[in-house]
Amino acid sequence: MPTLQELASSLNAEVRGNSECFIQDAQAIEKAGEGDITFVGDEIKMRNLSGCRAGAVIVGRDHVESLPELPPAMSVMVVEDAAAAFIEALTILRPQRARPTIGISAQAFVSPSAQVGEQTNVHAGATIGDDVIIGERCDIFPGVCIGPGCRIGNDVTLYSNVVLYDDVVVGSHVQIHACSVIGADGFGYKLIDGRHVKVPHFGSVQIDDHVEIGASTSIDRGMIGQTIIGEGTKIDDQVMIAHNCELGRHNLIVSQVGFAGSATSEDYVICAGQSGVADHVHVGKGAILASRAAANKDVPAGATYMGIPARPAAEVIKLAAAPKKIPEMRKHIRKLEAQVEHLSSRIDALSEPEQSSSQPAA
Amino acid sequence: MPTLQELASSLNAEVRGNSECFIQDAQAIEKAGEGDITFVGDEIKMRNLSGCRAGAVIVGRDHVESLPELPPAMSVMVVEDAAAAFIEALTILRPQRARPTIGISAQAFVSPSAQVGEQTNVHAGATIGDDVIIGERCDIFPGVCIGPGCRIGNDVTLYSNVVLYDDVVVGSHVQIHACSVIGADGFGYKLIDGRHVKVPHFGSVQIDDHVEIGASTSIDRGMIGQTIIGEGTKIDDQVMIAHNCELGRHNLIVSQVGFAGSATSEDYVICAGQSGVADHVHVGKGAILASRAAANKDVPAGATYMGIPARPAAEVIKLAAAPKKIPEMRKHIRKLEAQVEHLSSRIDALSEPEQSSSQPAA
Amino acid sequence: MPTLQELASSLNAEVRGNSECFIQDAQAIEKAGEGDITFVGDEIKMRNLSGCRAGAVIVGRDHVESLPELPPAMSVMVVEDAAAAFIEALTILRPQRARPTIGISAQAFVSPSAQVGEQTNVHAGATIGDDVIIGERCDIFPGVCIGPGCRIGNDVTLYSNVVLYDDVVVGSHVQIHACSVIGADGFGYKLIDGRHVKVPHFGSVQIDDHVEIGASTSIDRGMIGQTIIGEGTKIDDQVMIAHNCELGRHNLIVSQVGFAGSATSEDYVICAGQSGVADHVHVGKGAILASRAAANKDVPAGATYMGIPARPAAEVIKLAAAPKKIPEMRKHIRKLEAQVEHLSSRIDALSEPEQSSSQPAA
Repeated sequence: MPTLQELASSLNAEVRGNSECFIQDAQAIEKAGEGDITFVGDEIKMRNLSGCRAGAVIVGRDHVESLPELPPAMSVMVVEDAAAAFIEALTILRPQRARPTIGISAQAFVSPSAQVGEQTNVHAGATIGDDVIIGERCDIFPGVCIGPGCRIGNDVTLYSNVVLYDDVVVGSHVQIHACSVIGADGFGYKLIDGRHVKVPHFGSVQIDDHVEIGASTSIDRGMIGQTIIGEGTKIDDQVMIAHNCELGRHNLIVSQVGFAGSATSEDYVICAGQSGVADHVHVGKGAILASRAAANKDVPAGATYMGIPARPAAEVIKLAAAPKKIPEMRKHIRKLEAQVEHLSSRIDALSEPEQSSSQPAA
Repeated sequence: MPTLQELASSLNAEVRGNSECFIQDAQAIEKAGEGDITFVGDEIKMRNLSGCRAGAVIVGRDHVESLPELPPAMSVMVVEDAAAAFIEALTILRPQRARPTIGISAQAFVSPSAQVGEQTNVHAGATIGDDVIIGERCDIFPGVCIGPGCRIGNDVTLYSNVVLYDDVVVGSHVQIHACSVIGADGFGYKLIDGRHVKVPHFGSVQIDDHVEIGASTSIDRGMIGQTIIGEGTKIDDQVMIAHNCELGRHNLIVSQVGFAGSATSEDYVICAGQSGVADHVHVGKGAILASRAAANKDVPAGATYMGIPARPAAEVIKLAAAPKKIPEMRKHIRKLEAQVEHLSSRIDALSEPEQSSSQPAA
Repeated sequence: MPTLQELASSLNAEVRGNSECFIQDAQAIEKAGEGDITFVGDEIKMRNLSGCRAGAVIVGRDHVESLPELPPAMSVMVVEDAAAAFIEALTILRPQRARPTIGISAQAFVSPSAQVGEQTNVHAGATIGDDVIIGERCDIFPGVCIGPGCRIGNDVTLYSNVVLYDDVVVGSHVQIHACSVIGADGFGYKLIDGRHVKVPHFGSVQIDDHVEIGASTSIDRGMIGQTIIGEGTKIDDQVMIAHNCELGRHNLIVSQVGFAGSATSEDYVICAGQSGVADHVHVGKGAILASRAAANKDVPAGATYMGIPARPAAEVIKLAAAPKKIPEMRKHIRKLEAQVEHLSSRIDALSEPEQSSSQPAA
């Protein structure tokens, strides 16, 4: 357990207050206790410091002047970037397990024709099919099933019970979380004589470098070509990417999103939770789909779309407000009707000698 | 195969009719045949009895008087609580398999540093990591993967292919269904130089006593602290609980619901199917989210919310009706326009000698 | 690598152009290169041919006359059905792996009381419980877990890590993709003394012939009877079918759809992506739920429903347009108000000698 001063030295930080107190853990401001260090990243959090029980707080240099009066026992550690320093502190205070070096477990099921690179771990209960090639420093967890012909780069982690069907291509520095399924057949049938006859899927899936895929996500194989996940794209849990989709680079696809067949996205697209993209729809560079948005038409680059069907956010917000005006509008209409009737009587009175016909054929 | 009288004795029930008929199975009213016993729990079901082919029917004491005329071959079994007695009858008529007592299978992959309690079954193909502690009378099914450092209480069932990442804490009397993933990293990245850089997740997941979790559900680990599922909460299949969520006790979370990061709920919350709770949103005690509701703001205790975004149900229902009034309103407006024009002409006629200017600048 | 003529002979096709060129692969029109054959199925695709680099194109006999001017190096293969011929070409150009004949792997975990038919493969790491009966020519992939008492027909494929709970009945010619879970307990509880007490589930799941089920789909077991998936029905990835549902024959259930408890469908129903059917709701023969539709009432046979809650598509489309008229309606109302006020002043002027009372009590 380091002292605050020892921790500060590792973080190149400056201490104000008691630098000899021991720090046992790092915690969020609401949960920190006496032996903990916490951090504040913005003015709102700072206001909560007066009621905080942490032994020390990490503060960015440009926030130091705006600190409220602190509890007397709380020391301050001044850094450039409070959030980054807090993560460094966590790394020191909660040492992670060392990566094991088990190599290929004798209890794994590895085809004799598979090639496994240096320093790669294949855990007990993992299955590696014929002609698979796996690079160096990979971790293939228990229960992972890799179909024949797959190609996997370096520094890849496949967590427990991940399934890769045949011929899936995975780049380097890729992480796929537990129970995700890559390369199952796309959902394609042709109705012949009253029966849905399966369209064969000859393509596969290509996952580029630095992609991360969450738990229980599905990415189906292409019908002819590849379903592609571009470099650096991050996909959350329970996402569905259908056959022949091509996602650009550095997308963020949040949980429970669905991409229907042949949908495509350019770089830096963000799809918030439970949104969807219909088949063959294209999402332009940097576009954002709000949570629950359902894009049934192309989304232009840079646009923020929301709603079902998805449209520009400003339009949707305006349109959503419109029905709220209806009760007032109805009141106005009723008032106008009464006024018109009253005017009509007054005109009748004025024109008494004349023939009256005050109701036009509406 | 018991006679109706034998079954009645086990259920402390009174028989009216032929108590010597054999009962082979218990079935719902629409599906019951000659050798089956069925039950009626309400007046609506009772009306269906006349067309029912069951040999016997279980009826609550307070419904006996309201029974319609029954088919002549149908006997009646009178009990206090018809639904409960029917479940008891099922238990007798469809004996379940005895729990096997296999202990730790020789074909399971168990770390030497793991501790497994008395009468716990660890099936073939299950993997138990370093320093795991499992209590007594647990069932760890085939293909389950338990990461290093997990702590599991007593009387826990982990069904096939469940995955627990490192350091997950599971209470007692917990059931987790097949292919659920507990403790994968939360979806957190920081955009640095055009790349999404992963925020490390130092926390874990804590699942309290008497929780049940359905199949293919994901519960991600916290960033600093724990993602928490409170005591007695029941979660259905394909639910997503993101990092740092804290669910209260005795919640019911139905299938395909999503809780975004740091969302929280108090006790006795109900989230119906396909609903969602946005990040950092708090759902108050006993609140109900209707199916498909998307809560993007805090939901007060006791409230029923529906819609996208979720609002009080009464408001949503009223607002949904408003647009239906639009066609009629448009008709009224057109009629008013015609009337005003007509009045205007009449005034023109009356004031002929004067200068006319009947169109105001609208 | 066949020549175009050789390929044409296998496909009973007629070649126009250079029949001796070698064909190495079949590709979509946008991706085809020099050595590839492609196909056009409609007039729109045909327009893209002039910029296509494929060595040959498959064209239906009735489209040949409407072909645009082709690049000089592109040959034409004339067939009856272009799409079908293209799939045949793929089958020839991309030979699939032969099905292995491994029988029951010594590394599978098979109960001595299980019966496995002729020519069935049970891969390493698969688990087969007591009293299971599996037919002929099945493939049970690694990590599959089949609970006690299951009955599986002939020509069934269970992909990696599929889980069948106890007593599930699967017909013949069924495919279930990776990580799907069949037969977990339904989500049923009774609130007793503030706790949700589990309702036991005595039923199971019955999957009829020619059903295909995607990856990570959940089908829960019935409470008393069976949850049923009718013959020839195709289910995509991440679909949830709750307890006691009964789906008809030849349904198409697209990804991320949810069927709540006891929902039913007749034959030829289509549920598009992310749609939902509430508990006890019945979907009539041939009805279509659009993507995201949420059926909370019965859907009549042949109807197309959309929206939340789902209603006839025509109604929903009309109603969705209504709020867009509101801004214009408000303008009309304001104009009318000004006109009425103006008319009122004119009448005041005309009737100056009289007592004026131009504002009725609205």
